[in-house]
Amino acid sequence: MLIQGQNYKTVWMEGNIIKLINQPLLPHRFEITEVHNYEEVYLAIKTMVVRGAPAIGATAAYGVAQAVYDFQGPLKALKHHLAKVNKRIASSRPTAQDLFHGIANVTNSTINSKTVKEAKKKAVEAAEEYANNSVEECKKIGEHGSKLIKNNFKILTHCNAGALATVDYGTALAPIRIAHYNSKKIFIYVDETRPRLQGARLTSFELGEENIPHAIIADNAAGYYMRQKEIDICIVGADRIAANGDVANKIGTYEKAVLAKENDIPFYVAAPLSTFDLNCSSGNKIPIEERDQSEVLFSIGWNDNGDFNKVRISPENSKAKNPAFDITPARYITGIITPKGIINANKQGIRKLFCVERL
Amino acid sequence: MLIQGQNYKTVWMEGNIIKLINQPLLPHRFEITEVHNYEEVYLAIKTMVVRGAPAIGATAAYGVAQAVYDFQGPLKALKHHLAKVNKRIASSRPTAQDLFHGIANVTNSTINSKTVKEAKKKAVEAAEEYANNSVEECKKIGEHGSKLIKNNFKILTHCNAGALATVDYGTALAPIRIAHYNSKKIFIYVDETRPRLQGARLTSFELGEENIPHAIIADNAAGYYMRQKEIDICIVGADRIAANGDVANKIGTYEKAVLAKENDIPFYVAAPLSTFDLNCSSGNKIPIEERDQSEVLFSIGWNDNGDFNKVRISPENSKAKNPAFDITPARYITGIITPKGIINANKQGIRKLFCVERL
Repeated sequence: MLIQGQNYKTVWMEGNIIKLINQPLLPHRFEITEVHNYEEVYLAIKTMVVRGAPAIGATAAYGVAQAVYDFQGPLKALKHHLAKVNKRIASSRPTAQDLFHGIANVTNSTINSKTVKEAKKKAVEAAEEYANNSVEECKKIGEHGSKLIKNNFKILTHCNAGALATVDYGTALAPIRIAHYNSKKIFIYVDETRPRLQGARLTSFELGEENIPHAIIADNAAGYYMRQKEIDICIVGADRIAANGDVANKIGTYEKAVLAKENDIPFYVAAPLSTFDLNCSSGNKIPIEERDQSEVLFSIGWNDNGDFNKVRISPENSKAKNPAFDITPARYITGIITPKGIINANKQGIRKLFCVERL
Repeated sequence: MLIQGQNYKTVWMEGNIIKLINQPLLPHRFEITEVHNYEEVYLAIKTMVVRGAPAIGATAAYGVAQAVYDFQGPLKALKHHLAKVNKRIASSRPTAQDLFHGIANVTNSTINSKTVKEAKKKAVEAAEEYANNSVEECKKIGEHGSKLIKNNFKILTHCNAGALATVDYGTALAPIRIAHYNSKKIFIYVDETRPRLQGARLTSFELGEENIPHAIIADNAAGYYMRQKEIDICIVGADRIAANGDVANKIGTYEKAVLAKENDIPFYVAAPLSTFDLNCSSGNKIPIEERDQSEVLFSIGWNDNGDFNKVRISPENSKAKNPAFDITPARYITGIITPKGIINANKQGIRKLFCVERL
């Protein structure tokens, strides 16, 4: 992704240092954070310096690689050390599936090493491969998805399923990026996405840095623009996709999908293969995280001096409810854009995608 | 309405002083503002110290009455003075229909006065009558609407159509108040209502002061709770109702109405008679105000010291779009709760309500 005219990834490794775009500072300040050891990896994920399942997976992969690379001792002690490292990193956000993928991937690559030196080489290679593979998947999502975007299309997106949520390109934003790179004229309606404002803060930042025309709207206004025929297509990301095509994603996704159907607007979900959970038969089985009510009772932001601020927007004795995700039943989803092509959001589509006979 | 255990109205007159609940300070600080002359009336409406069409109408009525009451001069000069006063007050928010009703009502009551003394008496009486009539209408909306609310009902409301938007009781909140006064056990889901947060700031304040159980939710979460069968009925207010039953109301109302229909949840609109615009044949003819984009790019709130704050929640070069209202087509509306009973949201219902043969 372009930031201040330079090419960046969300996470990468230079020597034995992991570098991350510090996301809580965005959009106000663009800063690269250096991560030196697994305890710092743990903290970076836990405090959401890095967020978004694919980006977390790559960070965890680099974290394990770094721990191997910096290890000093005999080969037999490495396994014990890795167990400690993996446990700590895995506990940073225990519900993110990609986190475990990233850890397992690098760990498994070192298992048969005959020397510590060989383990170091293999671990770093595995982490790089994991990150590159993630970029490649997103790029393919972009190539397939961009075919849906015609010239002069107005596109609605929700939350941030952008490069910042992955290693690069993004999921929902990948087709938008590729369409823009291919000189299609597009305009993006960005749902601000209360309560955490990932749309207003991150998606608008990514689009602005790449000069993709866009406007932030209150989540309440998406339906208005759909009814005005101001939106040609909706593209969102996904946190988990069940075997029947039901999609768990940021709270509000279900609302936009229902409104899109009511207004005959195609509604697409973009996701890498790791987002599909074939062991989960239906969206009703996906547990919904209830986050702290302070996210609703307060708003975050920056004051005139550029200082981060948290301001109360509600009475002191009021309570809030704060479900972080919702389930969009498959019947509202026109299709799922994957690295292998666009599939129907149902069992048959998912069976074909994974070449399995049963689900 | 009860505030700090005392009974209050949004606006009232004591001697020649108009008193208003200062709404921009809520929920953080409860303060009564005194208004001494028509220039201050103009400013109070313009700066939204008072907001909500019925509350604005009553404030304007008191404003004209105050100008007559304080007038010193011969009867023939009063007419000229009133023309000046009316023009100024009417320019405060030129789209609020009730504003003109309030002004015309008091002005017309003075026209045939034979002395200045008589005009003063009649003007004050007319303003009181206007305000009392508004309260009476809202109370009747509450009585009719509360019949829809069963014990243990969970109710969704959007924006603030409460006592603070009227002189007392509110429109959407009147049925909720009366149900609570009648000891029905209820729970209110309060849409925070970005961008101006009237739900988080005002509706939750009103409900909290009267000990009505409630939770604030992000606007994105309303659909989630509907799908969870957590909401039994939706009740919202209206800014204008066309002759075919289409309703203009706060941005986001259309979204909630579509979601309610999709989930088989009754969706009611509560409004006094002045909200109906029989000269407007359809919602498509109601112009939608586009407000300043800073309402979306920033969030208002209060910091730890209780100071009002406006914090940026978006990149400095991003733009926003900010439609203040939307149109909910009549087909999504189960019924309209009026002071004269609950009617169907269509031409026939509105014809019966106003006892007219054609529209």
